[in-house]
Amino acid sequence: MAAVTSMACRSAVALSSVSRPSSALRAAAPRASRTGRRSVNVQSAVELDYDVKVFDKELVTFAEKEEYIIRGGRDKFSKLPAAFAGIKSVGVIGWGSQAPAQAQNMKDSFAEAGMDTKVIIGLRPDSPSCDEARAVGFTEADGTLGEVFDVISKVDMVVLLISDAAQAKLYPRILAAMKPGSTLGLSHGFLLGVLQNDGVDFRKDINVVLVAPKGMGPSVRRLYEQGKEVNGAGINASYAVHQDATGTAADIAVGWAVAVGAPFAFATTLESEYKSDIYGERAVLLGAVHGIVESLYRRYTRQGMSDIYGERCVILGGVHGVVESLFRRFTRQGMSDEEAFKQSVESITGPITRIISRDGMLGVYAQFNDADKKIFEQAYSASFGPAMDICYEIYEDVACGNEIKSVVNAVERFGRWPMGKIDQTHMWQVGQKVRAERKEEDIPINPFTAGVYIATMMATVQTLQEKGHPYSEICNESIIEAVDSLNPYMHARGVAFMVDNCSYTARLGSRKWAPRFDYVLDQQAYVAVDAGKQTDAEVIQAFKSHPVHSALAACAAMRPSVDISVGGDNDNTGVGAGAARTDFRSVAATVA
Amino acid sequence: MAAVTSMACRSAVALSSVSRPSSALRAAAPRASRTGRRSVNVQSAVELDYDVKVFDKELVTFAEKEEYIIRGGRDKFSKLPAAFAGIKSVGVIGWGSQAPAQAQNMKDSFAEAGMDTKVIIGLRPDSPSCDEARAVGFTEADGTLGEVFDVISKVDMVVLLISDAAQAKLYPRILAAMKPGSTLGLSHGFLLGVLQNDGVDFRKDINVVLVAPKGMGPSVRRLYEQGKEVNGAGINASYAVHQDATGTAADIAVGWAVAVGAPFAFATTLESEYKSDIYGERAVLLGAVHGIVESLYRRYTRQGMSDIYGERCVILGGVHGVVESLFRRFTRQGMSDEEAFKQSVESITGPITRIISRDGMLGVYAQFNDADKKIFEQAYSASFGPAMDICYEIYEDVACGNEIKSVVNAVERFGRWPMGKIDQTHMWQVGQKVRAERKEEDIPINPFTAGVYIATMMATVQTLQEKGHPYSEICNESIIEAVDSLNPYMHARGVAFMVDNCSYTARLGSRKWAPRFDYVLDQQAYVAVDAGKQTDAEVIQAFKSHPVHSALAACAAMRPSVDISVGGDNDNTGVGAGAARTDFRSVAATVA
Repeated sequence: MAAVTSMACRSAVALSSVSRPSSALRAAAPRASRTGRRSVNVQSAVELDYDVKVFDKELVTFAEKEEYIIRGGRDKFSKLPAAFAGIKSVGVIGWGSQAPAQAQNMKDSFAEAGMDTKVIIGLRPDSPSCDEARAVGFTEADGTLGEVFDVISKVDMVVLLISDAAQAKLYPRILAAMKPGSTLGLSHGFLLGVLQNDGVDFRKDINVVLVAPKGMGPSVRRLYEQGKEVNGAGINASYAVHQDATGTAADIAVGWAVAVGAPFAFATTLESEYKSDIYGERAVLLGAVHGIVESLYRRYTRQGMSDIYGERCVILGGVHGVVESLFRRFTRQGMSDEEAFKQSVESITGPITRIISRDGMLGVYAQFNDADKKIFEQAYSASFGPAMDICYEIYEDVACGNEIKSVVNAVERFGRWPMGKIDQTHMWQVGQKVRAERKEEDIPINPFTAGVYIATMMATVQTLQEKGHPYSEICNESIIEAVDSLNPYMHARGVAFMVDNCSYTARLGSRKWAPRFDYVLDQQAYVAVDAGKQTDAEVIQAFKSHPVHSALAACAAMRPSVDISVGGDNDNTGVGAGAARTDFRSVAATVA
Repeated sequence: MAAVTSMACRSAVALSSVSRPSSALRAAAPRASRTGRRSVNVQSAVELDYDVKVFDKELVTFAEKEEYIIRGGRDKFSKLPAAFAGIKSVGVIGWGSQAPAQAQNMKDSFAEAGMDTKVIIGLRPDSPSCDEARAVGFTEADGTLGEVFDVISKVDMVVLLISDAAQAKLYPRILAAMKPGSTLGLSHGFLLGVLQNDGVDFRKDINVVLVAPKGMGPSVRRLYEQGKEVNGAGINASYAVHQDATGTAADIAVGWAVAVGAPFAFATTLESEYKSDIYGERAVLLGAVHGIVESLYRRYTRQGMSDIYGERCVILGGVHGVVESLFRRFTRQGMSDEEAFKQSVESITGPITRIISRDGMLGVYAQFNDADKKIFEQAYSASFGPAMDICYEIYEDVACGNEIKSVVNAVERFGRWPMGKIDQTHMWQVGQKVRAERKEEDIPINPFTAGVYIATMMATVQTLQEKGHPYSEICNESIIEAVDSLNPYMHARGVAFMVDNCSYTARLGSRKWAPRFDYVLDQQAYVAVDAGKQTDAEVIQAFKSHPVHSALAACAAMRPSVDISVGGDNDNTGVGAGAARTDFRSVAATVA
């Protein structure tokens, strides 16, 4: 953690005012406390601590590491007036994935808390998004919809939710327009990466805070609405204080997290957040899972004749026996297109995802019989190293600023080459057919597929861990977002529905890294398996005994109790304005 | 060109002492001149001109652009003593691809010219390369083999041929060790990119020059040896003067190019060279061609049963008719593995490569019948845009320093994850079988394959042209290196023999970008063709009328008249110490 948080910790974050018990005391057995402190096996000092006064902090142990978390929920709305003291207006800038959700949630929460703090949407007057904003009650007439820079110059808090690339382009004007003593709220540390690349800094007379909900905008709204009836529903968020000009920045940040509906808020820094976030979506969350299923689908169909052919042969009666043997002789492990899709994509996005969500990665392993455990181990053992290689490359490309620079450059090229569709290939056409005929309970749990996928998930985890990220962040950016937020989207409507419902940064990153995982698995992992390479017992032991399993279990206790639901190919549940999109644009960076 | 050359032109390059005729004069009809000036259709001023005194410059028109070139050859060896005036010793540092070739060529040339300038190899005393150097006559005993920094501190010219990553790591020590007034010779502008990333500059009291042979080290040696008997044999080189501390740097650079055997030397800058070189190997030279053949092979085999199966069916006699129709019904355009390999890889590396080398890209188009022309056009039209998208991304990632930073980071990771093999997959195993049974004259010229490949080649060209590179560089980095140097390696022994006989920078870049071309062609180009998208007549017209064809023809007149020859799978011609390698290492950056 030292490397990624040192800046924020040293220069911008006041030390906590919560007195911490001595480590000797905390090393005793678990005990309850006033704040519901639940864990005490301290192995290292808490490295991230912000000066939160209005809300209570709790110490939680994720594996061997201790972190402060803050509990949200509707019963904490009564603290919002104190957290937002002095903030009479919040300007939500943009109308992409997060803005419609966060703006509506905050507006509802402020009303619930009896506050008169206004939520105002800032958009270009000619933006097509204005109509969508008006449709959910933000209007020029009551002063809750206005021009971007006009809104920025008037509000006490700017929640900047325009695209990463637009932030990169417009930040000098945005920062200049803000009132002294006001608060800049970010939902992504991307802008800090841009500033680092540019060798500049935020102006010193404003607060700079972050709240990053660990789910896509549509889920943030959907679960907030469910939270009105179901206790604990809502999307968790990480939060950070990068600059505290007013001495109240930490409570503003936590208040914002609570107001958008986070049941729990985890501490991070802008730098730790952008590194883990941009990395995670390039690894197992989007890029890797796409590359994995492409490579597996190809592997499973290779040299294969379709099942249809096999069936027709049966119909042919007389020639059956001969053709049947030829079929076996020449197909090797060939599968039909439909079967291969089930054994790769469906297996991951259906049962494997559900089991990880409920019982963790070890749960997937545990439910296999001995023969399938061997196949899982072989696939895992062969895939983990190659996946680590690519994960490290991604992480270091993110950490040194390359990925951010590439994204900014790429968006500038959209005018000439808009992002193309990724799901028009034969495989994804097959997928549409498979989904149409899907029987959820018949989807296989392929042990080879599970081994490759979970090895890549563990590589994503292991890299973040070696780079010093806190476990709350590791679990969210490597596992929870995958199984509770993103994979269900691919399960519903295929790969593009998952990838292209994310930010440009994510969509570009997924396009960039999916093929890398595909090739490395094909060239290194599958070749090793086919050559009969022995399972590496050390690699399997490291998997089984990895501390992330207990950290994930700790996180699980804090996850929403309501599933994200989104309709399938012919069902528009969770789809539409301000929710998930089925029509994907790639336009030049502008204020949406 | 302005952007990429401005620094060198403004700050480091003295204006030419060759008086140039007025443009009015030069706009007249072609005429001969004392210097053999051959072209006069001036459309723009010559943008790159160095202060060469010992050698004669010639003005050549490449398409609409005029460039100075310098003619080398063994009959110019008599000028070497003047060019190397004051240089009593040249230290060649490293023993990778270029060093054995350049060191031996220079040594032979100096002897031929009756000079006593010594060529001294600098290596780590414990380097396994020392034995290879001794084997070709560089020894401690006669003072022509020594420790790296010892050699650097004593010689009048340092030819720095250690790996890019090692240069990035060691340059502060190397620069510090050099004698004032000595010359730093580079064969790649990579180091300038590193310095730019680091925000530093070369020390001002040394010359900094570049000679970049347009072929791999083994070819540089092989064709030099052939040049002793065959007039014009040798590998062309680009040259540049980045700093001229002594006023003689341009002649040192050209002398070096002539001494290593370049029949012609083209002017460039360090920046233009590293951008086009790092870009080119990621595009059509290595990365793209690998991605293209992977995607085509998959396309051609998709849903395919093997021909073997078809043949067996024939053998089955009775069931022939039934199975034959099923075969047609279910295979769509399916081909056997062997056939698909021939129609993709073999087609490109064999006849398409040979025709481009002899008759240019239009030559490939011209030899098709009308039906095949249509297929070519459809494939070209669908592939050009997607290929441009990736070419631009590569170029801009190189130009902004990202690729150089990534390479330096990647090499640091080799200790943990050495580069894996890329040719153990099923497709390349098939290739080995196909090569073993190859009849050169039976290799098909697949019009679809040709369309995809040439579209990507043209995208590589077009991007360099839009970014302002001179045509000599464009033709070399997009076309000539491909057809005269690299593709023949893939033809001989497959993809790894081509890719992994290049530098770490190239090998890493090819691994990174091949899958990107693969995916973009699969997702955008082939999908468009299968959806029946019409050929874009404008795209085809732009191809047919592109100025690069005449520029390539001008370059062709300057290409060596001897083919590069390298043995196939069971033939070690051109393979071995100091030549091509069949055993590929990836180790941490050190002085080899």
